[in-house]
Amino acid sequence: MDSTGNLPGGVTVASGFQAGAAAAGIKYKQKKDIALIYSAVPAVAAGVFTTNKVKAAPLLVTMQRISGGKAQAIVVNSGNANACNGEQGVRDAQEMAAAAAGALGIPEELVLVASTGVIGQKLPMDKVLPGVLAAAGAISPAGGALAAEAIMTTDTFPKEATRQIEINGKIVTIGGMAKGAGMIHPNMATMLCFITTDAAIAVADLTRALGHAVEQSFNMITIDQDTSTNDMLVVLANGLAGNAEIVGESDAFQLFQDALTDVCTSLAMDIAKDGEGATKLIQVEVHHALTIADARRAARAVAGSNLVKAAVFGRDANWGRIICAAGYSGANFDPNLVDIFLGDEQVTSNGCSLDFSEERALEFLNNDTVRIILDFKAGGAGAVAWGCDLTYDYVRINGDYRT
Amino acid sequence: MDSTGNLPGGVTVASGFQAGAAAAGIKYKQKKDIALIYSAVPAVAAGVFTTNKVKAAPLLVTMQRISGGKAQAIVVNSGNANACNGEQGVRDAQEMAAAAAGALGIPEELVLVASTGVIGQKLPMDKVLPGVLAAAGAISPAGGALAAEAIMTTDTFPKEATRQIEINGKIVTIGGMAKGAGMIHPNMATMLCFITTDAAIAVADLTRALGHAVEQSFNMITIDQDTSTNDMLVVLANGLAGNAEIVGESDAFQLFQDALTDVCTSLAMDIAKDGEGATKLIQVEVHHALTIADARRAARAVAGSNLVKAAVFGRDANWGRIICAAGYSGANFDPNLVDIFLGDEQVTSNGCSLDFSEERALEFLNNDTVRIILDFKAGGAGAVAWGCDLTYDYVRINGDYRT
Repeated sequence: MDSTGNLPGGVTVASGFQAGAAAAGIKYKQKKDIALIYSAVPAVAAGVFTTNKVKAAPLLVTMQRISGGKAQAIVVNSGNANACNGEQGVRDAQEMAAAAAGALGIPEELVLVASTGVIGQKLPMDKVLPGVLAAAGAISPAGGALAAEAIMTTDTFPKEATRQIEINGKIVTIGGMAKGAGMIHPNMATMLCFITTDAAIAVADLTRALGHAVEQSFNMITIDQDTSTNDMLVVLANGLAGNAEIVGESDAFQLFQDALTDVCTSLAMDIAKDGEGATKLIQVEVHHALTIADARRAARAVAGSNLVKAAVFGRDANWGRIICAAGYSGANFDPNLVDIFLGDEQVTSNGCSLDFSEERALEFLNNDTVRIILDFKAGGAGAVAWGCDLTYDYVRINGDYRT
Repeated sequence: MDSTGNLPGGVTVASGFQAGAAAAGIKYKQKKDIALIYSAVPAVAAGVFTTNKVKAAPLLVTMQRISGGKAQAIVVNSGNANACNGEQGVRDAQEMAAAAAGALGIPEELVLVASTGVIGQKLPMDKVLPGVLAAAGAISPAGGALAAEAIMTTDTFPKEATRQIEINGKIVTIGGMAKGAGMIHPNMATMLCFITTDAAIAVADLTRALGHAVEQSFNMITIDQDTSTNDMLVVLANGLAGNAEIVGESDAFQLFQDALTDVCTSLAMDIAKDGEGATKLIQVEVHHALTIADARRAARAVAGSNLVKAAVFGRDANWGRIICAAGYSGANFDPNLVDIFLGDEQVTSNGCSLDFSEERALEFLNNDTVRIILDFKAGGAGAVAWGCDLTYDYVRINGDYRT
């Protein structure tokens, strides 16, 4: 377990889960681009999906299937989003899932499907189908890390997180993997994230815990204010921990929800930190807002502001852009009361500049994580949002992505 | 008159207007940073102001004064926003206006005041006041171009526009100047813009025409989705053209409103084109939307998407990002009906990729103006938005602006 409480392996740490990966050559040769997650028994399933009006084909298939509340496997490809491909895209997503179902010997309707990559290019099924079979042949209880690698696109490191809790004397594990990097803006689930748990929990309670976790984590990160067509987060709970079923309003539910929120937050922060071209994680905290909605609005606007992001990249203690972003966020606050801190250094008092140490501010801006704190001094609500700096590399990566 | 119908001189083309400029050394030595516009007689005045909750001191002063519907002069400084300076900021803005009033021999309450530049630094009054006196001493009917230069910050060229119309046999002139570059996102007036006209028109009608013009122009541009604390657009109408007063619902009103909209659109397009670091103007047209609100939402989202902007910079015909941005804009449309064109080249039909010529698309993306057209094929409403590409220079300029 590392200092953040994560065990290696992500989605295969919980009992009864296996994963596999394969390099199908969808966009790049050699790179693993097919991932498969498999549960020994059908699992309770819940998910959140992009709010974008344009939804990729695999989302249409998965949203329909998950409405039954059960799933046993998830097949994912990177390198191609299978979005904007019309009816053909839906047929391809179904076929991809059918290939996984056949190889695993489980019903088609228990296989969920996801894709990430370029929009508007047909899925190369001649590569995808053999890849799915290869990934299915490779599944193992140690396959989590390989699967996390296979779903990466412009990510620079795989993202995994785990938490373990004890419920009625049984160890319950929650583990997840995610991919992020670009086209990321909080509005419902973002990017791809898959979480497995061996908890026994009913679908309604799993859905409720997931909603809470996503609000605090994935919905509080932004890379570039672009909400993608393929965002999907799915959690499978197979019950193999043997705990008494977790039910709403209990201590066990609270414990489970907190652990799930921790896993989501850890993955979300990794995604923000690994935003395309990013050199720094930006953590924006709003304290003492009148309502949580005000705190969330202001925190997300500051974390999402191109000008704040560019200033952090340039290590410029330009707090004017911070208060400006809060000002247009729609949050209700009195500008004449706001205190702003860069880390421990207070730079603004009651909305006006303090004579702060530029040297200490610069030192602070050299950190890998830049904490920006706004104190509204108005009420008891708070929120935290995460983003990353805006760099030359973001422009380079996105100026030449498709070709 | 150039090909776009603009006469040189901007704010001093209409009868009875003079302007002056001075280099006060507020941020840079030598650069003109004080501008003054003066009308021979008190003018009817209307304005629109930032919707940012944080409003700079000069806005507070100007919003209060303009509520009387009259003004005779506008004094502006660049290099310092006089925002987030508390009570001192308001006193400084008033003193700046008082200095102009004294030098011009007109009542203080007829002088409007504006600032643009860095947020959160005190206005250096020891430099500003002599600068105001110098600008007042320099006013002339030929001073429009110098004033347009004096309000620039990171702009690379001054922005002026004029239109002339005939009303009851009299030539009526409308001329304006603007500054833009960064922290620009449509949400009420944006950046600084000053328009003068010799039209005789009542304040209510002027306000109504201005509202219409701003909706079509300044509210349809975006540079970086950041709405500033200092945005202000003021129009002065001094009546010296001698036309019969323009009143609502008349042909003359329609003519005036159209000409004002033209002036605003010309200035707004210049601002988008001169966005910080920009190499290209992006014009996004949405056709056949169900409502104007849908068309506007989609057009602005596409023009504002970092991913679209970076793709245009990289000359990548990545239409998937275009439909994706429309999809998260909140606009109501059917993704399966959308046609997308890059200039004359159709790249998407009914939401799916066409086998378009990459060569012709690349050729088209080499243009200084990149036209992106989305046809929703749903109704009769349309809208146009303008933005610019996202470049290395945007990051460079904003990574090191304050210092």
